[in-house]
Amino acid sequence: MSTRNYAALAVLAGLIACQPQQGGEAVDAQTNEALQMARAAFEPIPDQPPVLEDNPITAPKVELGKMLYLDPRLSRSGLISCNTCHNIGMAGVDVQVTSIGHGWQSGPRNAPTVLNAVFNIAQFWDGRAEDLEQQAMGPVQAAVEMSNTPERTVATLMSMPEYVERFEAAFADATDPVTFENMARAIEAFEATLITPNSRFDRYLKGDVTALSDAETEGLRLFLEGGCASCHNGVNLGGASYHPFGVRRRPDPGVLPPGDLGRYAVTRMEGDEYVFKAPTLRNVELTPPYFHSGVVWRLEDAVAIMGTAQLGTELNPEQIAAVVAFLGTLTGDQPQIDYPILPPRSEATPLPDVAVEARVSAVP
Amino acid sequence: MSTRNYAALAVLAGLIACQPQQGGEAVDAQTNEALQMARAAFEPIPDQPPVLEDNPITAPKVELGKMLYLDPRLSRSGLISCNTCHNIGMAGVDVQVTSIGHGWQSGPRNAPTVLNAVFNIAQFWDGRAEDLEQQAMGPVQAAVEMSNTPERTVATLMSMPEYVERFEAAFADATDPVTFENMARAIEAFEATLITPNSRFDRYLKGDVTALSDAETEGLRLFLEGGCASCHNGVNLGGASYHPFGVRRRPDPGVLPPGDLGRYAVTRMEGDEYVFKAPTLRNVELTPPYFHSGVVWRLEDAVAIMGTAQLGTELNPEQIAAVVAFLGTLTGDQPQIDYPILPPRSEATPLPDVAVEARVSAVP
Repeated sequence: MSTRNYAALAVLAGLIACQPQQGGEAVDAQTNEALQMARAAFEPIPDQPPVLEDNPITAPKVELGKMLYLDPRLSRSGLISCNTCHNIGMAGVDVQVTSIGHGWQSGPRNAPTVLNAVFNIAQFWDGRAEDLEQQAMGPVQAAVEMSNTPERTVATLMSMPEYVERFEAAFADATDPVTFENMARAIEAFEATLITPNSRFDRYLKGDVTALSDAETEGLRLFLEGGCASCHNGVNLGGASYHPFGVRRRPDPGVLPPGDLGRYAVTRMEGDEYVFKAPTLRNVELTPPYFHSGVVWRLEDAVAIMGTAQLGTELNPEQIAAVVAFLGTLTGDQPQIDYPILPPRSEATPLPDVAVEARVSAVP
Repeated sequence: MSTRNYAALAVLAGLIACQPQQGGEAVDAQTNEALQMARAAFEPIPDQPPVLEDNPITAPKVELGKMLYLDPRLSRSGLISCNTCHNIGMAGVDVQVTSIGHGWQSGPRNAPTVLNAVFNIAQFWDGRAEDLEQQAMGPVQAAVEMSNTPERTVATLMSMPEYVERFEAAFADATDPVTFENMARAIEAFEATLITPNSRFDRYLKGDVTALSDAETEGLRLFLEGGCASCHNGVNLGGASYHPFGVRRRPDPGVLPPGDLGRYAVTRMEGDEYVFKAPTLRNVELTPPYFHSGVVWRLEDAVAIMGTAQLGTELNPEQIAAVVAFLGTLTGDQPQIDYPILPPRSEATPLPDVAVEARVSAVP
């Protein structure tokens, strides 16, 4: 559909939505203005996964990746899968302050959602993984998460004939298909399918201005005019850039723990202290608690903190309610998958090892 | 299909399967004898779930039960679901020696499979739950498993409008639909659908004697004539009766820990020491490790221990291999489910509580 047609649709929808006590033309103008501003800042989630330049998405690779994603045997204990912390049935998160991993250890940061993560410029709160392939290799090895090693993981996969066959099918050109990197590539391909199109806001962006209520449109307007969209923009309303948390006023140490320097630990560059990737706001109503510290459970509170910390503004309750109403329109169609039947172990499969070697402190 | 028709099919299939170097009539007679003996001892898994007298299986109830089964918020931590220990993608078990629960505590016994569990006379290794409804209420409350309380569980369910609606739909006649008992009923209804028909052995029982190889048929014959079927019989090849473990010779204390008295803890009756429910052998090749202690990883070793402990027989390697080959024919079609999108939490939903109050010793 061309931009011209979108505009025509918007005008039509605006006429339908206009309230009788107001002049039709004034409402049209306001409606169009909000829509035009929104289109300048945001894009809808596409209906299909994006093309991964270096990792073509194929059906055998996605099916393999789905198995790996849900297979707890990628962890040393045999108990923790990708899905444990990025639960597909719970908007791609674990709804925990910070994730609990191997040996019931508490991780350092709140688990970001896997949904639409493929649209982020980089992965993890500090952007230390350039894509989902690189990301997938992290938690498998992290002592506080899955506590495995690449060697043991590959030995586990190699021990199961069905996995070997599936890697051969998914990486047909590879001389050595069962590798830790190909495991991560398959997981990336699967994760790239975990997108949530068709939110009410996306229908709005596509021209159906009736998809948002007046209160939600007011929230959108506040979101745009208040400056939220400076960081939370693009297809993911976030995930596209790095910003200091506390640019106007530093939040409480509970919300911004002093020991977690964020992107500074990656770049070691002055000025990157307490810098984090702006998280996506897609499906945000489903992914409490909020911030990398995960201590804020109410979306209203998170919005208020953003107001003071990032915008230098004390938002009033009506403004907060309007922004929260708008954020609720960012919930899209959740991914539908079949639960995979996992390959059976063989005698060569390493036994689950639930023992904890050493507890690790909570700050990275 | 009548018994007569089954027999006619069996004769036909026997003729097709007979080997050229043997006399056709002799093979027919042997084939028929094994099949007749098998039919006297076993039944195939039906294609449809059984009728639950006190808990009609309806689509809304099964869908609700599936959500509950996969919802980690039934646990105090928000991390452990029924599926954690009874993984639908892993033949209904966790492939752990004993299950790991709240606070990474180790449970006392190996997790029995949920697959076909509806056909067992009772649940748990010691039969202390009369059905899956009663069973489902146990792990939710067990301190070493999900560590929740009925009150907190109901408060969690009541806090989510989608759950309330689904309970109302599933229990339309109830004045108080959201209860701990109805939670268990919904889980039972879902679990009753987790059956694995169409194993090669079931096709054999239905008259296709070519479904088993000669070695597998020899294993079946040994299984029947050696006495295995005295305990492992019926539709589940087990799950139907209680027996002392070590009736002929007591196994090593590692395999039969002296502190776990089995059914005696339920009945307090003399003679019930070390008595356990004979486990189902359906899908047994997929459910290591074996026995209530879960210390035996190889099916060959489990069969050998059964020979000495229960039959007073030192099975030779060929006999063990034949029985194991037969057991491999008990793997049926694994259940196919869609991963449910779980109801979103509300502000009233109790927060996840990962703290461990007190560690519990491993023996019940």
